[in-house]
Amino acid sequence: MSKSFAQPQARPVPEAALDELRTLLGAGAVRTDPASLAGFRDPYAHRSWREHEPAVVLEPVSVEQVQEIVRIAGRHLFPLWTFSQGRNYGYGGPAPRQAGCAAVSLRGLGRILEISEDLAYAVVEPGVRFSDLYAELRRRNLPLWPSIPDLGWGSVIGNTMDHGVGFTPLGDHPGRACGMEVVLADGSLLRTGMGGQAGNPAWHVRRHAYGPSAEGIFMQSNFGIVTKMGCWLVPEPEIYISADVRVEREEDIAALLEAVRPLLLDGTIQNYPIAYNATLVGGAFSGVPREHWYAGEGSLPNPAIGKMMAETDCGAWFMRFALYGPAVIVDEQYAACAAAFGAIPGARMSARRMRGCDVHDTLSAAVPPPPGPAGAVGRLRHQSDCTQAGIPTLDLLDNLSWEDSGAGGHLDYSPIAPLDGQEALRQSQWLRSVFTEHGFDYAASLMITPRAFINITSVWFNTADEGQTRRAYDFIGRLIGLGADRGYPVYRTHLEYMDAVAEIFDFNEHAQARFNQRLKGALDPGGIFSPGKQGIWPSSVR
Amino acid sequence: MSKSFAQPQARPVPEAALDELRTLLGAGAVRTDPASLAGFRDPYAHRSWREHEPAVVLEPVSVEQVQEIVRIAGRHLFPLWTFSQGRNYGYGGPAPRQAGCAAVSLRGLGRILEISEDLAYAVVEPGVRFSDLYAELRRRNLPLWPSIPDLGWGSVIGNTMDHGVGFTPLGDHPGRACGMEVVLADGSLLRTGMGGQAGNPAWHVRRHAYGPSAEGIFMQSNFGIVTKMGCWLVPEPEIYISADVRVEREEDIAALLEAVRPLLLDGTIQNYPIAYNATLVGGAFSGVPREHWYAGEGSLPNPAIGKMMAETDCGAWFMRFALYGPAVIVDEQYAACAAAFGAIPGARMSARRMRGCDVHDTLSAAVPPPPGPAGAVGRLRHQSDCTQAGIPTLDLLDNLSWEDSGAGGHLDYSPIAPLDGQEALRQSQWLRSVFTEHGFDYAASLMITPRAFINITSVWFNTADEGQTRRAYDFIGRLIGLGADRGYPVYRTHLEYMDAVAEIFDFNEHAQARFNQRLKGALDPGGIFSPGKQGIWPSSVR
Repeated sequence: MSKSFAQPQARPVPEAALDELRTLLGAGAVRTDPASLAGFRDPYAHRSWREHEPAVVLEPVSVEQVQEIVRIAGRHLFPLWTFSQGRNYGYGGPAPRQAGCAAVSLRGLGRILEISEDLAYAVVEPGVRFSDLYAELRRRNLPLWPSIPDLGWGSVIGNTMDHGVGFTPLGDHPGRACGMEVVLADGSLLRTGMGGQAGNPAWHVRRHAYGPSAEGIFMQSNFGIVTKMGCWLVPEPEIYISADVRVEREEDIAALLEAVRPLLLDGTIQNYPIAYNATLVGGAFSGVPREHWYAGEGSLPNPAIGKMMAETDCGAWFMRFALYGPAVIVDEQYAACAAAFGAIPGARMSARRMRGCDVHDTLSAAVPPPPGPAGAVGRLRHQSDCTQAGIPTLDLLDNLSWEDSGAGGHLDYSPIAPLDGQEALRQSQWLRSVFTEHGFDYAASLMITPRAFINITSVWFNTADEGQTRRAYDFIGRLIGLGADRGYPVYRTHLEYMDAVAEIFDFNEHAQARFNQRLKGALDPGGIFSPGKQGIWPSSVR
Repeated sequence: MSKSFAQPQARPVPEAALDELRTLLGAGAVRTDPASLAGFRDPYAHRSWREHEPAVVLEPVSVEQVQEIVRIAGRHLFPLWTFSQGRNYGYGGPAPRQAGCAAVSLRGLGRILEISEDLAYAVVEPGVRFSDLYAELRRRNLPLWPSIPDLGWGSVIGNTMDHGVGFTPLGDHPGRACGMEVVLADGSLLRTGMGGQAGNPAWHVRRHAYGPSAEGIFMQSNFGIVTKMGCWLVPEPEIYISADVRVEREEDIAALLEAVRPLLLDGTIQNYPIAYNATLVGGAFSGVPREHWYAGEGSLPNPAIGKMMAETDCGAWFMRFALYGPAVIVDEQYAACAAAFGAIPGARMSARRMRGCDVHDTLSAAVPPPPGPAGAVGRLRHQSDCTQAGIPTLDLLDNLSWEDSGAGGHLDYSPIAPLDGQEALRQSQWLRSVFTEHGFDYAASLMITPRAFINITSVWFNTADEGQTRRAYDFIGRLIGLGADRGYPVYRTHLEYMDAVAEIFDFNEHAQARFNQRLKGALDPGGIFSPGKQGIWPSSVR
């Protein structure tokens, strides 16, 4: 494998194809005007950059239209870049890897096709957002919660396709997906799993059918367009406890992770906790600009971080988690957590205990504290209380107020490692030193699963300042390289670094990349689906 | 898709290839003598049948030898039929789909490569049996339990590859697999997931890495040979309760499943319960021949089933399940189960409560009741107590004593359906009528997951009686067809019916089969891996 791929401009969309697309979709759903296209750029790139601008955005409203778009692209051999909602802003949003692509927005496929109350699942199209699914469950007054990530505006399917994570007991989003419909490169439909039998009622209740399971190869790839997916839901518990624990020293992250691991492995804690460092809490939840903490050059010095800890009272690390179940059980589970975390010197716990049936009303009516450092923990708690109960919010977008320019952006670097306390401490100290060396602030969110954690670190910057934006983009690339040297791949990445991350997977002369390439050639011989996604290119481009 | 595939004899293994194989493996590991080959036939086929006999059995002891075997097969273009232990006897055991194949036994790759106590996983080769993994955990005195199926002699990897199910909280065996090494058709090695980076320590702790996840397409397929797999383990709980509930009327299965579903959905019950009907309990656990119950013609009449219920006291349905955790929690969980099941008129519960650290000693020392109908429930309980705690047994082989010929065999028919009480009752009444019509006894084991159940029905017969054996094989084929008409595929099937089951998946002109075929062509263009497995044939044969 060479270190760099050829990355020509995408093959242009021929005029004849545009005509066919206008006939198919209507002229208004084939957008080529600059104002429309601007809405589908990399949202945090500097406005003068053109590397990730589509040439046209197509807006189908039905599976049949998607199939026909694929057939037109196949005949004319131009590439399609598909997104569901395109809200993964820290990784490039709806923008294509290659400028000049025809972007296919699936926002118009917005139907919730089925909800089973007894079997606790929904079937959705890719335009359905977490907020849509939540609203429909509320409208029908069903005792079911969706599992959602921290921002509620994304697509249920799109998030799953990108290995998204949620914070209810069904937080493994690829794992709670069951049964897909996929448009293949010839425009035909595949239904995975039990859906391979027409009309089978177990399509969305049994994940492994007969023969190979294809769902996994359609995630983080470019082998097809998923147009339907079953999505399991969480039954409303009798009692819901949203809890947190604060520790006072940076090195306490080791003890905290060692304490939480057995509670995750034995199912005492059923959701994925997140541990935030003080810079994340102070930066994302205080609602004050960075100058409040530090107005000098370079990254936040220790005294500024100390000021954050003092004014927000968030500790060095603030870990949220939740419990779900009958009162007698969750109260015992909380006691077990209190005993485990209480053994860490200086650790402080807090919890909000609600009846499951009251959660929506209680949290909808709750008024989080006003902006200001003293309210940061309260605002984080409100956001956590909602998210861990499947109630979508956009609170986390507040972290962009860190940049008081009104043009705040962020890019994420998210290494994966085994769930080991000392490893987390070493990694965190290393990351802090690298961020500091490069003049960035180390804001960390450790998403914790029973055996591994993903450290979502966010680089915040002012997208109106081209130099600063360039430095942020370059820094992410530098982090990917430095992380690879220490053995860290990442779980998602920005368009700009998809090749670089693929390159990290070097076992047996990049056997994984060669394998993916073989699948790509077999499933999309014309190379029309999302060239370059996750570093997988059609052979004609590679 | 035509209804029947061409099924010629496998391309013969050329003498020159055998010479190369003998040089590679040693002559003793290239078995062609009839006595050796007889050990790798379909174990329950009549001894005069030759449809599934290999021509040669290869016994590699290392991954490198497996790679070289694949390269030799690729050069000489003869097919390999791979099995790990080959213990799925009800579906054909180690035997190849096509007679004349070169069978590759992976029993010689028997190393447990790693066990992580903190992160609760093991890494195994395909020859490692559940009993080996259990023994090693005991030898090291680790507080970890493997998740195992009802018979402990199978391969951990082989069972996972066939969508096997276990009965601890990690009973979704494909779901508790994390990270594989696979020999591809060119003899090269692929490592999936995080293993795609050489030396990555998160290979067996994080299931989704970067880019598409390939694990699912290597299960129930013939695209590669899995030579290593990570396997998550269950932490020893403080308290383990192995429990059961009996209901008295056939129609009570509906209420039983409606009662258990919420307990599964909310995690009160973390393992997969099984509901057995009286014929299964009386037949498999009494240790008396069928004549004890009924000596007449045809299937067991209602009075004989009534006699079983009376003499074994197993109820019309006997459902086992288990609870795991701290004492204060499992006792509350048990109370919740007792309340839910207690609402079914006539339901009776029973439970054995053990300290997790005592389970192995307690159950190893336990002496199950001697054979005889009065001991059937006790023997089933002992087997359940062990299996649900990860302690392998071979007790279930006793069901073959139903045939007092000493040559008992069974074939399984295992339809999948949504977890709905009325559906289970309708299905069970239908199956009973079909079994009765064909003169077989309806012995049912409903494996229950939170949203679906799989009804493992066993057809028992005397393999020494060719006519009876033929009728049993034919009956399975008839069931598959009748089930398909009612919308039921199955989760596994015997070699003989792999094509017929694939045929059931008819959505969009068998899109799933065509998709699998496309993968087959790309990943194994020479068609050397397990032709016909799950109905997937190389294009040269199809």
